[in-house]
Parts: sequence; structure tokens; C-alpha cells
Amino acid sequence: MSFDSVNYVAGGVLAPLGFVGKAVKAGIKDPAKPRLDMALIYSRFPTTSAATFTTNQVQAAPVKLSQSHLQVANMRAIVANSGNANACTGLQGVRDASLMCERIASGLELAVHEVGVCSTGVIGLPLPMSRVEPGLAELLQDLDSDSGTDIAKAIMTSDTTHKELAVEFMLGDKAVRIGACAKGAGMICPNMATMLCFITTDANIGRELLQTLVLDAVENSFNRISIDGDMSTNDSVLVLANAASGCEEIVPRSKECRLFAEALGGVMLCLAKRIVQDGERVTKFVSVRVQGARTPLDARKVAEAVAKSSLVKASWNGEDPNWGRIIHAVGYSRAKIYEELIDIDIAGLSACRGGVASNTPADELREAVKQKEFEVRINLNQGRAEYIVYTTDLSPEYVDFNRNEYAYWNQAKKDGLAH
Amino acid sequence: MSFDSVNYVAGGVLAPLGFVGKAVKAGIKDPAKPRLDMALIYSRFPTTSAATFTTNQVQAAPVKLSQSHLQVANMRAIVANSGNANACTGLQGVRDASLMCERIASGLELAVHEVGVCSTGVIGLPLPMSRVEPGLAELLQDLDSDSGTDIAKAIMTSDTTHKELAVEFMLGDKAVRIGACAKGAGMICPNMATMLCFITTDANIGRELLQTLVLDAVENSFNRISIDGDMSTNDSVLVLANAASGCEEIVPRSKECRLFAEALGGVMLCLAKRIVQDGERVTKFVSVRVQGARTPLDARKVAEAVAKSSLVKASWNGEDPNWGRIIHAVGYSRAKIYEELIDIDIAGLSACRGGVASNTPADELREAVKQKEFEVRINLNQGRAEYIVYTTDLSPEYVDFNRNEYAYWNQAKKDGLAH
Repeated sequence: MSFDSVNYVAGGVLAPLGFVGKAVKAGIKDPAKPRLDMALIYSRFPTTSAATFTTNQVQAAPVKLSQSHLQVANMRAIVANSGNANACTGLQGVRDASLMCERIASGLELAVHEVGVCSTGVIGLPLPMSRVEPGLAELLQDLDSDSGTDIAKAIMTSDTTHKELAVEFMLGDKAVRIGACAKGAGMICPNMATMLCFITTDANIGRELLQTLVLDAVENSFNRISIDGDMSTNDSVLVLANAASGCEEIVPRSKECRLFAEALGGVMLCLAKRIVQDGERVTKFVSVRVQGARTPLDARKVAEAVAKSSLVKASWNGEDPNWGRIIHAVGYSRAKIYEELIDIDIAGLSACRGGVASNTPADELREAVKQKEFEVRINLNQGRAEYIVYTTDLSPEYVDFNRNEYAYWNQAKKDGLAH
Repeated sequence: MSFDSVNYVAGGVLAPLGFVGKAVKAGIKDPAKPRLDMALIYSRFPTTSAATFTTNQVQAAPVKLSQSHLQVANMRAIVANSGNANACTGLQGVRDASLMCERIASGLELAVHEVGVCSTGVIGLPLPMSRVEPGLAELLQDLDSDSGTDIAKAIMTSDTTHKELAVEFMLGDKAVRIGACAKGAGMICPNMATMLCFITTDANIGRELLQTLVLDAVENSFNRISIDGDMSTNDSVLVLANAASGCEEIVPRSKECRLFAEALGGVMLCLAKRIVQDGERVTKFVSVRVQGARTPLDARKVAEAVAKSSLVKASWNGEDPNWGRIIHAVGYSRAKIYEELIDIDIAGLSACRGGVASNTPADELREAVKQKEFEVRINLNQGRAEYIVYTTDLSPEYVDFNRNEYAYWNQAKKDGLAH
């Protein structure tokens, strides 16, 4: 985050006042070697809540259910599991997700609509309810505010590290906190095919304003990381605000609103970048910055075409400063471009000017792309619009890692949940 | 081809009457170990000609030049090189491509506009004219009709086998031939980033009708093979007809027109499939057939989303019949779909019915996807429109193969053509 008045604090998603939670090893990921795979977040106080969900037309049962719950109530609890996405599981999937919400609602004395549910993992297998149900019972015992890190770990799938963050800043004379945890997504983390992010805050903010700020922040963070074509079946960002800090209600266009929005945006961008950096078998973190476009949409089309090109990404893995593949992707993006106007910089060095090679020695470019993180800047020289996407290289190991998911299917067969 | 009246004949692109040509080792690919890398095709008789070119907005100099030549004349000769795409080479690239046409026109006593030019290879490096010019001179000596295979070899880049085909069929009382050669493209063959196809025929057909039939045939063949987002900077299909068979002129909507169109379409589809089968480090040939769409465009969107998904393709490489990833790609395609209606068959076995797992045992599905070629059939159950795309798996070896193109740049540096 760029502004000085924000302090990082411990506690992750449970750092804000009034939030407690728990994580347990239910054996969904692997009954033989149980790891943390179920989590519960609960606000002791009433909340306002906001959310964004995948735009994929195939939506997992928990996504459908959480959306419908949000239509009639604010969320006070989130129950989540990893190891199984409960996607493409038909009516049974909806029943299973409903049961998760009902058990949690009953245990916490909430209305069922006050509970959100998220699942992440393999698609197309029913949830192993024989292990989920005992997990739900265990989740309800001994909630505390120290389990933030465990909760962040419990939603991990192929992530190599858990991702959490909490910040504190002053709104008026009150210290306000935002806490968050997340797991990897899409192309970045496709084996499990989901990005999840849970955000809590003890700020006092109305639902409508919160939703507006969340949409803005998601647009500039999670929607900027390179995904395999589009969002997955399960992507969800859930935000709960409980006013426990005692601060005054944040009103639109106030200084407090700007501060809160900046902190919220900063938390999301930080987690989004960590998701990219922790991509499966990834060796590079690349910012694709498009400048000089006629419209923001054109800038976005170009940035996404480059950030999604397998050939461009493979060249980064090979530490090959191959601007020819980049301009090729610019050319097939649906934005109107003029080859003769295009400039490309790689890692701060001029690689292409006016659509042809610049005179930077190839050895210098090669040296520059050996960095673990660098920027590719594409100037279309047609206007003033900009866009940035954060992405990675494409490695042989990534493909190898994603060749099959047999282990999950074999376990499902043992459970009598697959043929 | 499906109809009985077509016979396969030898001779490739030089099989039709009146066509001669040559291929030489100019040392563009590798001066140290020269391989065939320049080719010439020439019709001894006047022609009508038709063509389609890449839709990429970044177009190689030879593409621009061939297009402008076609606007004022019919093509009687094609000169081509591999090893360098002459793309993103600015004015120098246009000068070099022009020189190639001028030398050939001068040697064959043609107008310069009667010569088409194609280049394929690495993007962003100037053509090594010190080796191209002697190659041009050599191309003009001793043209014959036996060099079809050499010409097919001379346009290869990362192709593992040359691709050629010639057929003969009766139009009225005359035997008519269509000859062709091609090289790989796009995602299929992305290192060299180009698909080229040269087609010759001794049929008698007007330019306008020929262009119509060529567009149709390309739409059902080369446009159906999975490409990495879109066409490359150099993709070109050039078709020359010289009437040397002595058959009567083909008129629209005649039986002869239907026969010729069917043969032309068959030749293109055959070569398009061979390009896919010869994709870089490819182990599977997969037909993605979408049925039951509301509109052909919807069917196409779904087929292309599935055929381009890195995750779906990686699962095929792992021989994992992962229908969850397939339905995920269906969901993010921009076609309107209903999850509950979707049926998916993999290699002839039911994998998903109504959006959930069918009861086919996973072991049977796994066994089925061990085949080198299989079909994925997706029925959206919303209408009658269909579309098919031919694609491949995505292998770790493919990514590894495409990690860098250093060798080319190092050679260019030696030639004084790169910094």
C-alpha cells in the first residue's frame, strides 16, 4: 500500500474486532493424511456484507447458494472447504452446500441466510459428506480470534504458502482494521480451479457503499491477474463489515471513505499479486502494462492477449526477450492497433520501436529478463488509455503438474462417490 | 475425401499440368548445415488465382506485398522461404520481399505483380539477403515438375514431416488435378508461427468463383484447427488455377462446380488435419464437436474455448478424461449455455449428463483417452447448430520446445542483422 497511515498487524482474517473462527482437518483433501481443509469465520456482531462471484456460467453449488443468501440477508458467517469444489454436482451439490450452511447456522444461532459457503478443489465429484459432517461439528467448537493463519491454510489447495494480510488505520479517532485471506486462482492455480478471498473489517459501512467499493477494488486487483480465459466455477470474494471498531459510519465521497477504499484496494491488490507469485510451478512475475491506447477497453484487450499467450509465456520461462511473440499477440488482440506505432520495452529496456527491433543489444535484453520480476510495457501510441495485468511465465513443470487429477478420483471411488 | 471418384496421385503441388518449380538450400535456416529453405512454384500458362491471408493486424511484409499484387493481377509464380518470417521488419522488410518478387519476375519474364511471396520463421529479424539473393538465382535454374516434395520440404520449419497431397478427378471428359503442400501453424506449430498452404490446379475456373470456393474451403479446414488465439503474422493460403487440363470452365452451381469444391475442400481438410497431427511435441489429435447449440456462432465459441484451454489440453496429455475442466471451459465461453443441459462424451463414452457425472466407470474413460485420436462431443441441448474444431493436447515438451529462439538470434547477430 502506498500511504503511510496504514500499519500491518497480525491476525489475518480474524484481526478486526469481533471476528472469531476456526479451522479443522476433516480429511477431505486426503483422509489418510488429514490436513487443514475446513474453515469457519464468524462475526459476533451483526454485519453488512458484499461479494463478487465468478462470471462463469457454470457455477458451483456453494456459489449459487451464497448468492441467493446474500439477496435476503447480510452474511455473519462463512464456512469453507478445500479439496472438493462441489461444482457440477447437480441437486446433490446444492443439498450438500445447504446442509453446510444449516449446520453452521444452527450452531451459531443464525438464520441460514446469514451463512455463506465456499468450496474449492476438484470439479465434478460430490462432496464426501461422511467427512464433511464431522468437520462441521468440530468447526463449531471453541471459536477464537487466533485462528486466522489456520483458516488461510485450510482454504489452500495447490498454493505453496498461505496468503493472509491485516492492516490497521485511523478513521476519525478510531483504529479500524481490515483482515483478509486468499487462495490461488485460474491459470495461476488451475489444478484446483478457484480463487477465494475472505475479507473482514470492523469498520462501520453501509451495504450499498461497501458493495461499490468492493467491486472497484476487485476490478483493480483480482480482475487484473491473468486467468485461463475467464473466472472459474467457484471464484468468490466475500467481505464482512461489523462496525465493532466503534467508528462513525463511512459515508460516500468523504475523506474516511477514500481512506477505507484505498486500504481495501491495497489489501486486495497485495493478495492478488501474491496469488500470481505463488502460481503453480511459476518462475517469473511479469507486469504487462499497456499505454497509449485509444480506450481503456482497447488497452485491456491488448494486455490480456499478451498475458494469456502460451507462446509469450513460454518465452519468459526460457528467459528469451522475444518481443516478436509479444507484438504477434498485440496484433491478434481485438483492439485496433497500428503495427508501425508500437513500442515495446522489456524489463526497462527498449526492445521494439515503431514495430521493428530497437538497437538494444540482444545480450542486454537477455540479461534483463533473467530477473524474477519485470515489466513488459507496450505503448500503442494512439491515445492515453492504460491497463495493467499481472501474470507469469508458462513452464513445462506447470503443464506436467496439471496433467491429471487421478488421485482425487481414486479417493472418490473409495468413498463410493464416483464410478 | 469421402467421394469415390477422386484418385490420389503423386507429384504434390506440381502434380497438375503446366506447373513446374524448384527448391534450394539457401542457408537461411542454418548456413552451417544448409537444408531446403527456398522454393519456387511457376505456372507455364496464365492463371486465375485466389488467396486468404492472416487476420492478424500485424502482418509480415510478404503478406502485405502478396495482397497488393493480387489486387492488380493473377499470380503465376510463388516464391517462398523458411527460417525467417520477414515480419516486424519495417520498410526494409518490404524492400526485401519486393526484391524477391522482382528477381523471380525478371527471371520468368512475368510482371512483378504476377509473383506472390511468402516467408515463415522467426519474427523481428531482417531477411539475410546475402543468402537469399543467391538462393533466388539458383531457384530460377532448371525448373521441373518433379520437385513437389522438395518444395513441401523447403517451407517446413518445426514440422517433423513435409505435408503434400495431389488428387485427380474427372470433370466432363477431362482429368483434372489439384496439388497442394502446407506447413504448420499457430498453436500447432507456434515456434515458427506460420501456416502456409500452396494449392495448384489445372482446372478452368474464373477468379471470382475460385475465391468463393477457397474461402468456403478454408472456413471448413484451416479455420477449424486450434490456433493460439488467432492467426499468425504470416498465414497465407494461395491458390493458382491454369486451365491446362483442357476442361471446360467451371460455372457456379453446376455439377462440376460441386465436384471441384468437394475436392478442393477435401484437400484442405486433409492438410489441416495433418498440420494438427504434426503439432510440436503433440501426443493426441482431438476433435472437439459441439452439438445442440442455438446458433453456429455459439457452437463455435464453445468449441474454441474448449480447444484452446491449456488446462483441458494438459489433461489430455495426462490421459485424464477430466470432463470437469471441459465444462468449466464451456461455462466461460461467451455462448449462452445452461449447465443443467450439458452432455459430454469423451472418446465415445458418456462422461457427463445434464451437467453432472454420468455413471461410466472412470477406468473405462481413462482407457478410452489412451487412444492417440479421439472425439470430445459436447451437446448443449439447446438447438441444432454444430461446430467442430481439431486440436491437440498440451505437453510439457511443447512448452520446453518453445522456451527460446536464441539460435536464430545468434545467427542473425553473426549476419550483422541483429544487435
